[in-house]
Amino acid sequence: MAVNVLFAAHEDRWREYRDVLADAIKAVGVDAVLQTEFDDPSVVDYVVFAPNGPAVDFSPFTRLKAVLSLWAGVEGIVSNTTIQVPLARMVDAGLTAGMVEWVTGHILRHHLGMDLHINGQDGVWRDYVPPLAQDRCVGILGLGALGQACATTLHGLGFNVCGWSRRAKSIPGIICESGQDGLKTVLQSSEIIVLLLPDTPDTENTLNAVRLSWMPNGAVIINPGRGPLIDDDALLAALDSGHIGHATLDVFRQEPLPPDHPYWAHPKVTVTPHIASETRPKTASEVIAENIRRGEAGEPFLHLVDRDAGY
Amino acid sequence: MAVNVLFAAHEDRWREYRDVLADAIKAVGVDAVLQTEFDDPSVVDYVVFAPNGPAVDFSPFTRLKAVLSLWAGVEGIVSNTTIQVPLARMVDAGLTAGMVEWVTGHILRHHLGMDLHINGQDGVWRDYVPPLAQDRCVGILGLGALGQACATTLHGLGFNVCGWSRRAKSIPGIICESGQDGLKTVLQSSEIIVLLLPDTPDTENTLNAVRLSWMPNGAVIINPGRGPLIDDDALLAALDSGHIGHATLDVFRQEPLPPDHPYWAHPKVTVTPHIASETRPKTASEVIAENIRRGEAGEPFLHLVDRDAGY
Repeated sequence: MAVNVLFAAHEDRWREYRDVLADAIKAVGVDAVLQTEFDDPSVVDYVVFAPNGPAVDFSPFTRLKAVLSLWAGVEGIVSNTTIQVPLARMVDAGLTAGMVEWVTGHILRHHLGMDLHINGQDGVWRDYVPPLAQDRCVGILGLGALGQACATTLHGLGFNVCGWSRRAKSIPGIICESGQDGLKTVLQSSEIIVLLLPDTPDTENTLNAVRLSWMPNGAVIINPGRGPLIDDDALLAALDSGHIGHATLDVFRQEPLPPDHPYWAHPKVTVTPHIASETRPKTASEVIAENIRRGEAGEPFLHLVDRDAGY
Repeated sequence: MAVNVLFAAHEDRWREYRDVLADAIKAVGVDAVLQTEFDDPSVVDYVVFAPNGPAVDFSPFTRLKAVLSLWAGVEGIVSNTTIQVPLARMVDAGLTAGMVEWVTGHILRHHLGMDLHINGQDGVWRDYVPPLAQDRCVGILGLGALGQACATTLHGLGFNVCGWSRRAKSIPGIICESGQDGLKTVLQSSEIIVLLLPDTPDTENTLNAVRLSWMPNGAVIINPGRGPLIDDDALLAALDSGHIGHATLDVFRQEPLPPDHPYWAHPKVTVTPHIASETRPKTASEVIAENIRRGEAGEPFLHLVDRDAGY
């Protein structure tokens, strides 16, 4: 009997996913009916989920085996108490690759002082040679799949990388810290800091006025993680005072960032439009399909969410 | 008896090198006298050389064992027929690291379309997602120590990398081409091309009007190699016609690039001031010291120049 898969995301996603996801499920040998609605919710086996889609109350899905999120961040669903089945987040090789490329590019932009040349084509030969990566310390807050991939790539480029996570971790070549003391150590030593923490009540305003003050003068902040990780007023004050040198921000409390938000016009802020962590339909469909195959074969699901921790 | 080492480079270099080079020679266990001049040239054992220094005619150095260049490029010395001893070029780990960082940063700038955000902070949320590196082809002309290091790093970031060298080479993960047909293949397939060829009569104007026309529309040129590799008039014409999308140039036929050169004011050109391939005194001194140690121990020198090939 065919497996029924409900695709519950925005209709723009359906246009991107309908063919590649159907192909991916077929490729793992599962016979599935993939639709954006089923007349009878009690026949649905799996829900492919993204925020802004139609699924809110999961209690009518009485036969449901798992909810498979298209998003890496699950703050839009983790507190939904109507979900009584396993919930898997997206760990997409394409998303990870894109994140590593975006983070590496924006770190090298600041490391090399590239703006001086992009915006300084005035005929003056300024032969300031930047330090090598081996003389530069980069900090990464959050050592999940994305943080670890960025840390490893930056270490491979020669940077001194220190990472921080709530629970202690160990990653070859990376100085790993945890706990409140560890957070202070990482912030104090990082000329460039990357925010890749999940969005939970505990991580809100991770960069507040006090913690920003711990960072070295002229430090650069790069946020491809989640908007609420930063206290926006505190960051703007630290940029205005000169203590923080630059902020490159890809995520915001409200998206799209409103045109009149002070970040847009600030000379020390670069806004990018939530492009660092874009899920790619082809690689994401392979992850969804593999989890459906595992569910049908009675094997454990990949990338399950720890609902107590919130991610 | 002490070994006599003549430091024959610009006096600015002497200020940077005198202490670190003396320390490096001591560290390899050689007892040396390091000076910028010797009253009697016939006592000199090694010349540490850079262009713009005092050494031109090497025939008075009758006891000379080797000439050790501080520069990776040896076009300023390779044709000097008064040198009858081994000539070693600089292969400096610091220079290689700096080159890889500069090349990777400027490739990611174009790959990610970073300028759109650096210069487009106007409140408009343009959520165009760039392709992944795995969907982008980067070409590298020149597969010497620097070209290979860049190719390997870019491959590690996920790019499709094809390289070209005069003599056929094989590098894991890299599509390697050689010969005139191979050059056409690489140029036709590369959205971004990096020039890391040596400066020889054969490589002058490697990118001329015909070869520029082989590249895909909108292709990006990155030149951290040598100025004469590009026919400047042909490049300016290809930029003006729109066929070439951008050129990021670190080296020029005349340096510093004169303030009235059309590259400075061109909206599709980024000039950087010969910073990609900067030799770092500490790491370069270790290479010079190791070659002096080898010379004294009767071991083969590292990084010898092939004077027939010119590099």
